[in-house]
Amino acid sequence: MAAYAIGIDLGGTTIKGALVEQGEGIVHETATATESDDGPAHVIDRIVKLIAKIQETHPEKEIQGIGVGVPGAIGWDRAIVPYLSNLPGWTNINLREEIQQRLSESFPVVVDNDANVAGLGCAHYGAGRPYTSFIMITLGTGVGGAIIYQNRIFRGATGAAGEVGHMSIDYEGPFDRSGIAGAIEAYIGQKFLSRHARYRLLPRTESMLHKMAGPDLKKITPKMLYEAALANDDAAKEMLAWAGHKLGCMLGSAVNLLDIRKVIVGGGVSLAGDFILEPARQALMHFVLPSMRDGVEIIQETRGNEVGMQGAAHLVFQHLEAHGSSKVAS
Amino acid sequence: MAAYAIGIDLGGTTIKGALVEQGEGIVHETATATESDDGPAHVIDRIVKLIAKIQETHPEKEIQGIGVGVPGAIGWDRAIVPYLSNLPGWTNINLREEIQQRLSESFPVVVDNDANVAGLGCAHYGAGRPYTSFIMITLGTGVGGAIIYQNRIFRGATGAAGEVGHMSIDYEGPFDRSGIAGAIEAYIGQKFLSRHARYRLLPRTESMLHKMAGPDLKKITPKMLYEAALANDDAAKEMLAWAGHKLGCMLGSAVNLLDIRKVIVGGGVSLAGDFILEPARQALMHFVLPSMRDGVEIIQETRGNEVGMQGAAHLVFQHLEAHGSSKVAS
Repeated sequence: MAAYAIGIDLGGTTIKGALVEQGEGIVHETATATESDDGPAHVIDRIVKLIAKIQETHPEKEIQGIGVGVPGAIGWDRAIVPYLSNLPGWTNINLREEIQQRLSESFPVVVDNDANVAGLGCAHYGAGRPYTSFIMITLGTGVGGAIIYQNRIFRGATGAAGEVGHMSIDYEGPFDRSGIAGAIEAYIGQKFLSRHARYRLLPRTESMLHKMAGPDLKKITPKMLYEAALANDDAAKEMLAWAGHKLGCMLGSAVNLLDIRKVIVGGGVSLAGDFILEPARQALMHFVLPSMRDGVEIIQETRGNEVGMQGAAHLVFQHLEAHGSSKVAS
Repeated sequence: MAAYAIGIDLGGTTIKGALVEQGEGIVHETATATESDDGPAHVIDRIVKLIAKIQETHPEKEIQGIGVGVPGAIGWDRAIVPYLSNLPGWTNINLREEIQQRLSESFPVVVDNDANVAGLGCAHYGAGRPYTSFIMITLGTGVGGAIIYQNRIFRGATGAAGEVGHMSIDYEGPFDRSGIAGAIEAYIGQKFLSRHARYRLLPRTESMLHKMAGPDLKKITPKMLYEAALANDDAAKEMLAWAGHKLGCMLGSAVNLLDIRKVIVGGGVSLAGDFILEPARQALMHFVLPSMRDGVEIIQETRGNEVGMQGAAHLVFQHLEAHGSSKVAS
């Protein structure tokens, strides 16, 4: 019998939600503004309204629970949100309880970090389906990641594993937003990549990026780099290759440590596709032990938004497999 | 009732073996030359003789099986040795079968990589006992490692996980023996560290290391660095601090990725203790995400040889727990 859950992807500006059929994918999806400035209680109200709205679209489908991906680390309980840097006022909020109290029915609610959730979605509904284990990396404002090991999230000692974005590739390199020297985020995080591109472009007056960005090179975005690269702009292609090389170096360290040989790359910056990923593949081979190169692959995840909601819903399916199908959350 | 197994640590020059009591430690240990130049069959004969010799010392103790740590990666089967770089002729040898065929009784035989085995020994008999999860790093000729997660070896997709020595801390750094740029081994592996020290010492004519090594600075060893540091030699202390800083950087990346916050350091070079480990601790804090710094620790494992044999024997105890106590190996 088909099983259904609702997956919520809580972001700093948008809350996305979907009704997901286990093993199949999204039946219905919708979104609403987060309105994070109005504080956690308001945001949680909006999440619950979104859940109700989704339920109304398919009242005939019995929902087994609610899964929520949030932009921050979550402890073992999968309930309490210690801190969210992008949402004001979110400190030690028991999101599971807060949601359950507002729901008219009692459902299991499971909360996890959004990068982990995207990895889980990717494993069961996305580019990760052919693989039991892979490293997921999400190239966006920050550089997020998750380790999927034997089809489950590898959570580490406290639940925060997978922080690939803060792995250093140069002990004397530039600092990322956490003050870590040479962290990969300081090269390929969206703002960092744009800033590096700006300086690289100053002497490259022939590049079409000067026209695209206008007189203020601060307006350069990774998307512009991609578009210029598609139009065969050398400076743009070099810049994306530079980013890919750095990415490959970091991934080499991750593969050597984990012996997980599949890497799935998603997120906005990854839309640049092979302009970044092909140099990353070449570099990766130089940074992986020769004995571990067999089967090493970098794969692009193109279903960015979907896997977040699918993975959130899948938290529920996994939770019920582990703890039984009682509607009361553990 | 007390349970016993024999743990074998196969090295390029020495085979070490011990009778180990589960949860207690070594009852009796001995060693013999590997004589690796005479080929695998000869070495395996010597392993089996060592086993017999250990058994004879305590004929009253019923042995539950044989565990073997080998200096190379082992597949999931824990039987076949694909390749050992330090032992000539070892290619695709089914070490489990080869040992079993030579034994007078039928015992379970379990084979694993020596770094993993040392990690397991450390977890159950050494400095790792207080922790359920830790990263083990062995500073010797090479830089080996293992991930102990929830008291077991994290083996990755093919069994080769834990290769911390080849994680890069500088994408443009010096090459290690596997040709990986900036791999930590290229800084703190025994020969590399000695070579870096040699060049650093050239202008430091006041250092006592010039006397210790004699006119040929190629004779500098990490042990000499440690002895000179103990005698308050500035150049030696700086060199070990330099090494520790690099180690801390690499460990930061590993902690960020795994969210495993305890690091246990063993192996010959680690005898330099806090001369290396204190700078490593300081650097580590700079390379770990602020949100993950709670509980981060670097601990020294001083029982280097013992944990190798203990961990090898423990492979047997874990195998029997998982597969039952039949004496016939699975």
